[in-house]
Amino acid sequence: MAADATSAASVISSPVGVIAGGGAMPFAVADSLAAHGITPVLFPLRGACDPARVEEFRHRWISVGQLGRAMRLFREEGCRDLVFIGTLVRPSLTEIRFDVTTLRLLGNVIRAFRGGDDHLLSGVGRILEQGGFRMVGIKDVAPDLLMPEGCISRAWPSDNSKADIERGRAVLTALGPFDIGQAVVVIDGHVVAVEDIEGTDALLARVARLREEGRIRAATGRGVLVKAPKSGQDLRFDLPTIGPRTLEGVAKAGLAGIAVVAGNTIAAEPQAMIAFADAKYLFVIGLPA
Amino acid sequence: MAADATSAASVISSPVGVIAGGGAMPFAVADSLAAHGITPVLFPLRGACDPARVEEFRHRWISVGQLGRAMRLFREEGCRDLVFIGTLVRPSLTEIRFDVTTLRLLGNVIRAFRGGDDHLLSGVGRILEQGGFRMVGIKDVAPDLLMPEGCISRAWPSDNSKADIERGRAVLTALGPFDIGQAVVVIDGHVVAVEDIEGTDALLARVARLREEGRIRAATGRGVLVKAPKSGQDLRFDLPTIGPRTLEGVAKAGLAGIAVVAGNTIAAEPQAMIAFADAKYLFVIGLPA
Repeated sequence: MAADATSAASVISSPVGVIAGGGAMPFAVADSLAAHGITPVLFPLRGACDPARVEEFRHRWISVGQLGRAMRLFREEGCRDLVFIGTLVRPSLTEIRFDVTTLRLLGNVIRAFRGGDDHLLSGVGRILEQGGFRMVGIKDVAPDLLMPEGCISRAWPSDNSKADIERGRAVLTALGPFDIGQAVVVIDGHVVAVEDIEGTDALLARVARLREEGRIRAATGRGVLVKAPKSGQDLRFDLPTIGPRTLEGVAKAGLAGIAVVAGNTIAAEPQAMIAFADAKYLFVIGLPA
Repeated sequence: MAADATSAASVISSPVGVIAGGGAMPFAVADSLAAHGITPVLFPLRGACDPARVEEFRHRWISVGQLGRAMRLFREEGCRDLVFIGTLVRPSLTEIRFDVTTLRLLGNVIRAFRGGDDHLLSGVGRILEQGGFRMVGIKDVAPDLLMPEGCISRAWPSDNSKADIERGRAVLTALGPFDIGQAVVVIDGHVVAVEDIEGTDALLARVARLREEGRIRAATGRGVLVKAPKSGQDLRFDLPTIGPRTLEGVAKAGLAGIAVVAGNTIAAEPQAMIAFADAKYLFVIGLPA
């Protein structure tokens, strides 16, 4: 687990290497680092990170499976502290070109692939730490990107929604040991659907379709999306994330709002997200961890 | 909970009323009753039960929400013992035409609708028992339709599949309190998807699609569908059911087989199911309860 955010942040060494997957978050993290006087160096992952946006930052391209080359580049750039951020579709073993260092450590990598995605990322993280680097989390380097406690929307959850939130958290707690279900949709006390390997956007699309097909009969504007980290999840590598697209999905699914764990959830593009939530009168609430 | 099958069966009073929803099972139950010297009277639910097949049996049509009329017909036919069997899409309160007796008991019915489907069926069951009837289960009247313990297929689960089965049962146990997830798909130790209100066929179709889209990279012929009753589920009203269509879904999802709880799962059209399983070398196993 990541150390306490404040204490860890005080010893972050500049520059910080940002291992950058897909989506907007790597750039938000880089911006946040720069705003706090820490130099970011991006290490965009080929095939995942946006090549256009990465041009705004100092960067060196890396590839999955090329750990030896990546560690050489981290050292060349003077990055001891590394943060991994962004989306990464789980690669197929047969599609990866391994370099010599990676092949030497292949036993570990293979073991990492056998478990869930958490184990994969933790496994790579361990290899990097054996190489003398330190894996830090968003909590350590850019805590301003995390959801605060309380409502960030104008709308607040009704008592009905509060009960749905409680039930959703209970389901996610029960599923904690199984590396599935970072999110769940609860409507009027009914657990309607559990997130699977498709992720939250697909979960919400499924709920929207069930509503269209009349399988969900509750009125529009009832029900919640509840998201929480899996228990045992290494929060340095894989924090739950919400953003404007999540809220669009919540609106299409006819729900009342979204509840996440404060401090353990990334709020991507918060301004756009809040604007959308307020326009649709959806609530966005951070729950105590 | 239903009483022990043998002791209850010994006091079943002929004729037995079969409240018949959709699908083939009501007719299988009626056939099984007749084969054991008990006269079945079908009470097909309008909009759910097949009007053509019901003609083979003595029957009186009934409607959801017309409990008064239904109880009168049960009495006219001399049916003290009632069994509910078949599929029933959860009706909308506003679509139901209630009779006077039902309106008198409406408080109970509304309460029944607020919970999950289990509560709905249990609620109606309680009303019928207050009316002097006895709700019995398939275990009591047609235990020959239930999955036995052990493999009914030629194929047996591999050690890999056995581990997936264990994990699947653990997930279903964890979800027990939440009225969701009567089935789960586990592949190589990964919990891939949990059944939601769409049911098992839709779950398997989802897994088949995830395979097509390359989101599941495991080889075909790996992974299991595990089905179990929800904890607290009233097994008189809602037993998990498998049949040929389930096996077709398992084949399309590229799984190795299916594991269910022996004695607590209906095997619909077992001959066709086993023939299909053996043709595709899929296993079908009944686990100890």
